Amino acid sequence: MKPDRDAPVGVFDSGVGGLTVAREIMRNLPSEKIVYFGDTARVPYGNKSKENVIRYSRQIIHFLLEQRVKAIVIACNTASAFALDEVRDEFDIPILGVIEPGARVAAQETKNKKVGVIGTEGTIGSGIHASYLKRLNPEITVIGKACPLFVPLVEEGWLHDPVTVEVVARYLQEFKDKEVDTLILGCTHYPLLRSTIGEFMGDSVRLVNPAYETALELGALLKKENLLSPGKEQEEFPYRFYVSDLADKFKAFANSILPYDVEMTKKIDIEKY
Amino acid sequence: MKPDRDAPVGVFDSGVGGLTVAREIMRNLPSEKIVYFGDTARVPYGNKSKENVIRYSRQIIHFLLEQRVKAIVIACNTASAFALDEVRDEFDIPILGVIEPGARVAAQETKNKKVGVIGTEGTIGSGIHASYLKRLNPEITVIGKACPLFVPLVEEGWLHDPVTVEVVARYLQEFKDKEVDTLILGCTHYPLLRSTIGEFMGDSVRLVNPAYETALELGALLKKENLLSPGKEQEEFPYRFYVSDLADKFKAFANSILPYDVEMTKKIDIEKY
Repeated sequence: MKPDRDAPVGVFDSGVGGLTVAREIMRNLPSEKIVYFGDTARVPYGNKSKENVIRYSRQIIHFLLEQRVKAIVIACNTASAFALDEVRDEFDIPILGVIEPGARVAAQETKNKKVGVIGTEGTIGSGIHASYLKRLNPEITVIGKACPLFVPLVEEGWLHDPVTVEVVARYLQEFKDKEVDTLILGCTHYPLLRSTIGEFMGDSVRLVNPAYETALELGALLKKENLLSPGKEQEEFPYRFYVSDLADKFKAFANSILPYDVEMTKKIDIEKY
Repeated sequence: MKPDRDAPVGVFDSGVGGLTVAREIMRNLPSEKIVYFGDTARVPYGNKSKENVIRYSRQIIHFLLEQRVKAIVIACNTASAFALDEVRDEFDIPILGVIEPGARVAAQETKNKKVGVIGTEGTIGSGIHASYLKRLNPEITVIGKACPLFVPLVEEGWLHDPVTVEVVARYLQEFKDKEVDTLILGCTHYPLLRSTIGEFMGDSVRLVNPAYETALELGALLKKENLLSPGKEQEEFPYRFYVSDLADKFKAFANSILPYDVEMTKKIDIEKY
């Protein structure tokens, strides 16, 4: 079955974080419909083994294909790191992750060839950003740092709180000391800390938001494949949200970052896929 | 098969937190052997549904029974809240949780009948401490508060850090304002913040550590059932650790809180049980 241009884009994440990627797709490709899946029963992926993350990703892709999506965005850094290469060849629709687009822009933007990456322990431990960046330009030095308190701070809503300002300073001082000129926000929650991080790092450091870069790359890919939506039907709500467990926290977070209320989320037994 | 007094005690948690309970058993019942299971593939339980947490608990109990344990401690507040009543009658060995022992001591100790409880969102949302406390004494007023930053702060090792001192103040001011005289540390990670929390709350507030109270209750229960260990054989290392996914973080945390190095952990496919 050949997907058509009217079909939605599938976006998935281990939980709520990928909504920042969905948000950038909504902003930058407003004609596209989205089916979002948050794997809230198995969140977080950051501390799971590669083998499990690949299995989870396959199950979710099967579910999204059943929803007739025309392309899939893996809006999760850990799943992009562990599963993208495995699944890209297994399925015959375009699949993209959030790591390559961010790495590509960072490689273009850095002048002194010192790039910082922040993310979860899983993402930083995988060294995936460094391996992409080195492939793009072997002269780039990559400094990675896990920032495990950022996700819970975002989820508390303490985006500009003095506690968060202090934690940002604690985690990021190293990047100032080492004079990185480009910093990749390598976790889907982190764009919500963008202004607090920007104030600490200063104007001379370019912050790369992979959610935004991924939305642009998705647009280019859909155009190339002749899959760009001709426009949404007005009568239908173009965004659908699915989760694998309890939806309350998901809805609260979605409502705090999306420009409208997410009323409907449907729970799916993802282990069946 | 009747368990014998030489058999180990089974202790399980969603991850590393239950090690604080294992530690209290080691300290207070030094003759007992322990088989510990950390469900690191499915951690955390705090945001999972009741149905899933019961299923996970049953699987782990089957695994522990295969290890011939004589009694089981559910060293996880969420699993104690959701699964203890379900599983206690299904299996014919003693099973105890961490919530009842803490609630019982809090009900005995409070003078002004105002008890505070801190824990994960799942535990606090379940209202389980309040329901135990009200059953013990209907006059007790229970004030619960979720403190989602405490676990990642503990896992960062920032136990006495200025950031942690500030977060403690932010979360716990409400308990001072409402003049609780007893505060239950209702998450297995929180005893590691005990001194920082105690400094903020002051000497007049009794902090209840359910890990300690559970170890005492386990001792009383084993004595009553004539299952207290007659003493460990000296040639054997008396503690065994199992996990359901990657063991590195588990070992690091275990080594930071236990009085010896945990070298050996074994990975189990818990979905098979």
